[in-house]
Amino acid sequence: MIILFGIFIRYNEESDTHWIEYRREKNISSDSENDFYFRYPSFQDVHVMIFVGFGFLMTFLKRYSFGAVGFNFLIAAFGLQWALLMQGWFHSLDYTDGKIKIGVENLINADFCVAGCLIAYGAVLGKVSPVQLLVLTLFGITLFAVEEFIILDLIHAKDAGGSMVIHTFGGYYGLSISWMLYRPNLDQSSRLQGSVYHSDVFAMIGTLFLWMFWPSFNSAITDHGDGQHRAAINTYLALASTVLTTVAISSLFQKHGKLDMVHIQNSTLAGGVAVGTAAEFMLMPYGSLIVGFCCGIISTLGYIFLTPFMEKYLKIRIHVESITYMPCRES
Amino acid sequence: MIILFGIFIRYNEESDTHWIEYRREKNISSDSENDFYFRYPSFQDVHVMIFVGFGFLMTFLKRYSFGAVGFNFLIAAFGLQWALLMQGWFHSLDYTDGKIKIGVENLINADFCVAGCLIAYGAVLGKVSPVQLLVLTLFGITLFAVEEFIILDLIHAKDAGGSMVIHTFGGYYGLSISWMLYRPNLDQSSRLQGSVYHSDVFAMIGTLFLWMFWPSFNSAITDHGDGQHRAAINTYLALASTVLTTVAISSLFQKHGKLDMVHIQNSTLAGGVAVGTAAEFMLMPYGSLIVGFCCGIISTLGYIFLTPFMEKYLKIRIHVESITYMPCRES
Amino acid sequence: MIILFGIFIRYNEESDTHWIEYRREKNISSDSENDFYFRYPSFQDVHVMIFVGFGFLMTFLKRYSFGAVGFNFLIAAFGLQWALLMQGWFHSLDYTDGKIKIGVENLINADFCVAGCLIAYGAVLGKVSPVQLLVLTLFGITLFAVEEFIILDLIHAKDAGGSMVIHTFGGYYGLSISWMLYRPNLDQSSRLQGSVYHSDVFAMIGTLFLWMFWPSFNSAITDHGDGQHRAAINTYLALASTVLTTVAISSLFQKHGKLDMVHIQNSTLAGGVAVGTAAEFMLMPYGSLIVGFCCGIISTLGYIFLTPFMEKYLKIRIHVESITYMPCRES
Repeated sequence: MIILFGIFIRYNEESDTHWIEYRREKNISSDSENDFYFRYPSFQDVHVMIFVGFGFLMTFLKRYSFGAVGFNFLIAAFGLQWALLMQGWFHSLDYTDGKIKIGVENLINADFCVAGCLIAYGAVLGKVSPVQLLVLTLFGITLFAVEEFIILDLIHAKDAGGSMVIHTFGGYYGLSISWMLYRPNLDQSSRLQGSVYHSDVFAMIGTLFLWMFWPSFNSAITDHGDGQHRAAINTYLALASTVLTTVAISSLFQKHGKLDMVHIQNSTLAGGVAVGTAAEFMLMPYGSLIVGFCCGIISTLGYIFLTPFMEKYLKIRIHVESITYMPCRES
Repeated sequence: MIILFGIFIRYNEESDTHWIEYRREKNISSDSENDFYFRYPSFQDVHVMIFVGFGFLMTFLKRYSFGAVGFNFLIAAFGLQWALLMQGWFHSLDYTDGKIKIGVENLINADFCVAGCLIAYGAVLGKVSPVQLLVLTLFGITLFAVEEFIILDLIHAKDAGGSMVIHTFGGYYGLSISWMLYRPNLDQSSRLQGSVYHSDVFAMIGTLFLWMFWPSFNSAITDHGDGQHRAAINTYLALASTVLTTVAISSLFQKHGKLDMVHIQNSTLAGGVAVGTAAEFMLMPYGSLIVGFCCGIISTLGYIFLTPFMEKYLKIRIHVESITYMPCRES
Repeated sequence: MIILFGIFIRYNEESDTHWIEYRREKNISSDSENDFYFRYPSFQDVHVMIFVGFGFLMTFLKRYSFGAVGFNFLIAAFGLQWALLMQGWFHSLDYTDGKIKIGVENLINADFCVAGCLIAYGAVLGKVSPVQLLVLTLFGITLFAVEEFIILDLIHAKDAGGSMVIHTFGGYYGLSISWMLYRPNLDQSSRLQGSVYHSDVFAMIGTLFLWMFWPSFNSAITDHGDGQHRAAINTYLALASTVLTTVAISSLFQKHGKLDMVHIQNSTLAGGVAVGTAAEFMLMPYGSLIVGFCCGIISTLGYIFLTPFMEKYLKIRIHVESITYMPCRES
């Protein structure tokens, strides 16, 4: 990794000491125009989502909360280095000197790439060893970079919040690896999947941090100015509307109108995922609410009806997230 | 909600695609002048306060921590949509086309509005159902918008951190609903109010996040530039000074000089509330310390002497927060 | 404290109402040039590190998690007021009117100063009373300000992330006080140092928040523009690389290749500490990776081999952190 970084990776103009000359050339009036100040707060929010959000979301398993946070930490730290390289080769390669120029936007993209893999691991949680996870990450991130190159650079699709690139990839990659890794005798380990009280509170920490910072996730790499502003507002509204819909649907299908906290923990995020691709557009506030509304319904119903069906017939224990992200794609 | 949003709510100039033309008109030199970059980091901090801070502050009740976080989540997500509408009608209505133009400042105000209601719910915690809470939120936010309209637009009071508007409203609304909802036989439920060890650590997460991000809360909607800068410094100093005073007073009244963690969890925030209204003014650093000092004393003493008195004579179990915010108002 | 603040501390130009005149004089084009917008998001991240990060890092002790968070809160709140004064006298004193002018940069520096003391307290955790800690803080911060004055103002060393000033001070101050406070009969209290499951998850919250926000810590007071940008990238890479090395070394020395979570919790942060001093320089991305790599090795090996040795011969139970920061200094 050190050698590869030594050969390929350099600072970009905005993080280089030549920034002052670059500023003069481009006629930029002040330091506050540095991309750092546009994107750094969002970057930190995304960073919190990756390490605290995804880490604690997985803690709802009995006897597994500590490992979930720890492995999530390890995999994310490895993945982001590899993602900087892979994404650099496919997107940011400067052909004049064969170097990848990195700045804060690349760090955000690397975090996004890691997010794609972490979503996939929801499907195999508690069934694979850390070394297996590292190998899966190596493949996953390479696949991700290729997929991203095809969608963004060949098809030229616009995907601000990465709904298509990140979440669909995460969902299907998770499905594939859980299919491949499936062994009948592993089924007994699923007995450990029950949740305990304190674990649930920890998982709620994960859900809340993901939910709160999703507007940053969707607006992190959109255009400066009104683009970021609009993406944040749209995501915020879609998320708020999904929470209400999820709670409503969830209590309809439960006896005594009680809430199933697993629905809350998973479906509330669907609105943010669904609005991701379109967050930058002039969706209008009511449009965001409609997206959130549909998503809450599809995702919760999907979770209620699809999960038992798949478990029974396909004998695959798919983690809720893979389910959540599949129907979302369609909206 | 979708229909109401469809009819009334539009993006404002700074989150609209016409931003470039607007920039040219107003002679704004760069994208970094967009209100988004002035307010978004503060908005995210306030968002964390609402969902993690208030959510986990309520977790100190035995057997109630999960519900507290979950219901807080539901109510806040509902409240902020309604608040966007209500506050829009009273404050941001554009009379030329009858639309409400929203930007990041409106999102912050909606969060503030929700904060007012969440403070009130401290008083009825564990005694009402989620549906009752939703109805209370509907009324609460409507009342709040009317109250805000009277204080800010008719009396033209200056209230940067919302001490008057938000916290006093929260305190008295909480008192009123706990008065109305009071039933003698409900008293047995207060046996569940004891705290357990792990719940206390969770509640500490809530307290810390509220405490840390209070400077953002008080500076979020103040004037750009020196206003925000000064509000943050004043709040920071007042909060630091309150912590010391609270600990000192609390150990004076405890046997063996031990600390009562309930005092810490509640009174340390009083300084931030008290300095809220005046945070933007030239209060001078020592002024902030004095505010924090007085507040720590009044709030902790109020908690020690007022709570048993009220419980005995008025038979109302008032949540600590309502107590905390009442004396604060006077300073 | 109030009197000292009254005599000495005033707002600086950027948080004063005279900001508009100051802007005109210095020909600053807009409010977004106010230092507040360059540093405030980083300040909030550092603030989270101090109160949540250090607080929860100490929670891994059995029967001590609540006290750790609470005392950390108290000491930090006291320390930062005193640090504002001491650092002000040594660094920011305006000789024309004998006042200290404070702005957001001073708040960050005060937080850094408190960090130095909190690191030291890792060494005496669970052995001293809160009052002793307050006295130690009073001395510690005074010593810190003198040390900082010598290193930064007399020797004119460059120390962006404060590795030299903050962490070395913390390590040695911790060693000194644990040496002085050592009593043989206190050794029995170390039985309480074992960790329990939920405490470990809480400690992981501390570690993660420290790890995630370290780029903000190292870039908070560096130069505007490319300086902050580069410091953040370097720290991010060094941290990612340390995590991998720590996990690798840790599993080599454990039976069955299992991870020792204490290593993870302590050594992963070493990379950020080590890169601190040099973060602002043109270290090159691969340079940061090398720093992180070396640090992970030295810190984990140091923890594995040095700790038992010192416990046996010197009869001092040194907290891991003091160990961690000692070898780091050399890299």
